Amino acid sequence: VAEDAARGPRSGFPGRLREAVRTKNSRVCVGLDPVLDRLPAEVVQASVQRHGDSLLAVAMAYLEFGKGIIDAVSHLAAAVKPQSAFFEACGPAGLFVLKELIDYAALKGVLTIEDAKRGDISSTAEAYAQGHLGATRLPGGGAEPAFAPDALTVNPYLGRDGLAPFVRVCEEHGKGVFVLVRTSNPSAGDLQDLVVSEGGLPVYLRVAAMVAEISRGLEDPDGYTPVGAVVGATYPEQARAARQILPSSWFLVPGYGAQGAGAADVLPCFDAGGYGAIVSSSRGIIYAHQTPWAREKGLSWQAAAAAAADKMREEINRALAGRDDRSARSPSQCT
Amino acid sequence: VAEDAARGPRSGFPGRLREAVRTKNSRVCVGLDPVLDRLPAEVVQASVQRHGDSLLAVAMAYLEFGKGIIDAVSHLAAAVKPQSAFFEACGPAGLFVLKELIDYAALKGVLTIEDAKRGDISSTAEAYAQGHLGATRLPGGGAEPAFAPDALTVNPYLGRDGLAPFVRVCEEHGKGVFVLVRTSNPSAGDLQDLVVSEGGLPVYLRVAAMVAEISRGLEDPDGYTPVGAVVGATYPEQARAARQILPSSWFLVPGYGAQGAGAADVLPCFDAGGYGAIVSSSRGIIYAHQTPWAREKGLSWQAAAAAAADKMREEINRALAGRDDRSARSPSQCT
Repeated sequence: VAEDAARGPRSGFPGRLREAVRTKNSRVCVGLDPVLDRLPAEVVQASVQRHGDSLLAVAMAYLEFGKGIIDAVSHLAAAVKPQSAFFEACGPAGLFVLKELIDYAALKGVLTIEDAKRGDISSTAEAYAQGHLGATRLPGGGAEPAFAPDALTVNPYLGRDGLAPFVRVCEEHGKGVFVLVRTSNPSAGDLQDLVVSEGGLPVYLRVAAMVAEISRGLEDPDGYTPVGAVVGATYPEQARAARQILPSSWFLVPGYGAQGAGAADVLPCFDAGGYGAIVSSSRGIIYAHQTPWAREKGLSWQAAAAAAADKMREEINRALAGRDDRSARSPSQCT
Repeated sequence: VAEDAARGPRSGFPGRLREAVRTKNSRVCVGLDPVLDRLPAEVVQASVQRHGDSLLAVAMAYLEFGKGIIDAVSHLAAAVKPQSAFFEACGPAGLFVLKELIDYAALKGVLTIEDAKRGDISSTAEAYAQGHLGATRLPGGGAEPAFAPDALTVNPYLGRDGLAPFVRVCEEHGKGVFVLVRTSNPSAGDLQDLVVSEGGLPVYLRVAAMVAEISRGLEDPDGYTPVGAVVGATYPEQARAARQILPSSWFLVPGYGAQGAGAADVLPCFDAGGYGAIVSSSRGIIYAHQTPWAREKGLSWQAAAAAAADKMREEINRALAGRDDRSARSPSQCT
């Protein structure tokens, strides 16, 4: 408790995220989605030479690549977002690498969002929450973090009792979650856009209301709670509607770049001060070395990633600076 | 292709599951939900002696315990269902143990359902599907399974393009998925029971319809597809409604025992022949050694688990034998 008091209110996840956005002047989140085919050939070859033609070689190539990307973007990105699926696809060794990359990013001063989209019933959600955001109990009575990202993405399909343990652990450990509200994929609307008879709102706004309810009273001095929302950049109107219901949630906004959204599309996600959202791009940044302009300039894969992240950072900042004041909102105006 | 032809139609997941139910005369799925506090003390102590007071010790205790449960119930259970959350909570070592238990169960002739409730957008869902049901590509051009359960639980919140890769990989590798339709937890209805304006159906039945759509045409000679559904035993009316829409899906039915449902509650899940569903119980079986009757009889934890699994097996079989014929249905009657 004394330790918590010493850390102060800014030590919670929304405060740390705000501070990262401010000091780096960046709303960029770099997604770490390693895919074997697209990795720099020399990284894969070096790993195969050491580890043979194996899943371990793939996992260790992902480690080298991930560390290289983190090195390249740590001053340009508010956060990095490793996608668990690609690491799980390498088996247990991939999970070692995921954990290592999360710890490496922390060492380099970058916040980490583990994109694992976990969700289960209450007792099981508790194990996910402790394992990914808190600490797992040891036989001797102590506890140890299993994975230690700053935040985790979470799936709401199981309802409030599946979300509550995550919120509790966030509060206790100064961590954050981003609940899937409106995702960026083409068939996101299959479920999320179904209009509910009672109240006439689509499902995704009912989820937004659920997120607002479970995080009520957890606002920090800046008006934000540890319970954020995933809201796809590819659907700006839905983002605007979600913003109305969720004035106190940070938005994690995927879909920028490779999925088709641009800087103008993400503006409804931000508050009047330019905070409240971070925009995620994966392939557009980490595989920038494969684009014609990077090849033309002869950029290394790390230099290309840094250039792409910086370009995205400036695009968003420029759009924010130039936006119509009427479209701006602040948390206090909405609550 | 020649190999596939040689395996015959029964080699797909629904065929293997049917065969397991038939030969063991059991509709029981034993959930492996290891929780440190509830493990037999001697298992934990032995692991701490070898591995110290660490997450590795917890993970290795889960391995010993899980193998012991599999040994005890392999002839009584159609499948075992390790819950990924508890293994993830031990960090990377826990994932090694999860993989090892899946392989151990296969060795002992028990089907495995990895309860991980994965779900993401298409390209990422592809990585989850290959990593948990298929095989991940190696640098040399081959491929290797990362985790190799017979089936995986999957979350539908991201819509059809998030489910399609799982279905494709199931077809290719003879595996199965169980899509969350109506879960067994108290707040399951927060989202799943919301009634949709168009058509007047609740969300969970729209999900059921989506499952029916993506698995259409994949029926095996017995009328079942690789795409199953999770339907909680705690809500028999919802199970009946889901059955109407999903005549060709195996149901994975959680909520038996510790969560409050009994044999009568699960009857609507079965077809006329007594197939089409397996009922899952975790705590009621794996921690049976802590019940008064097991203590009174002086049963070991393995003997208690076997006794509890056998009792559940017989309860369900007896209820099926005694059910009113009018409540029975067959796949052919519904399609």
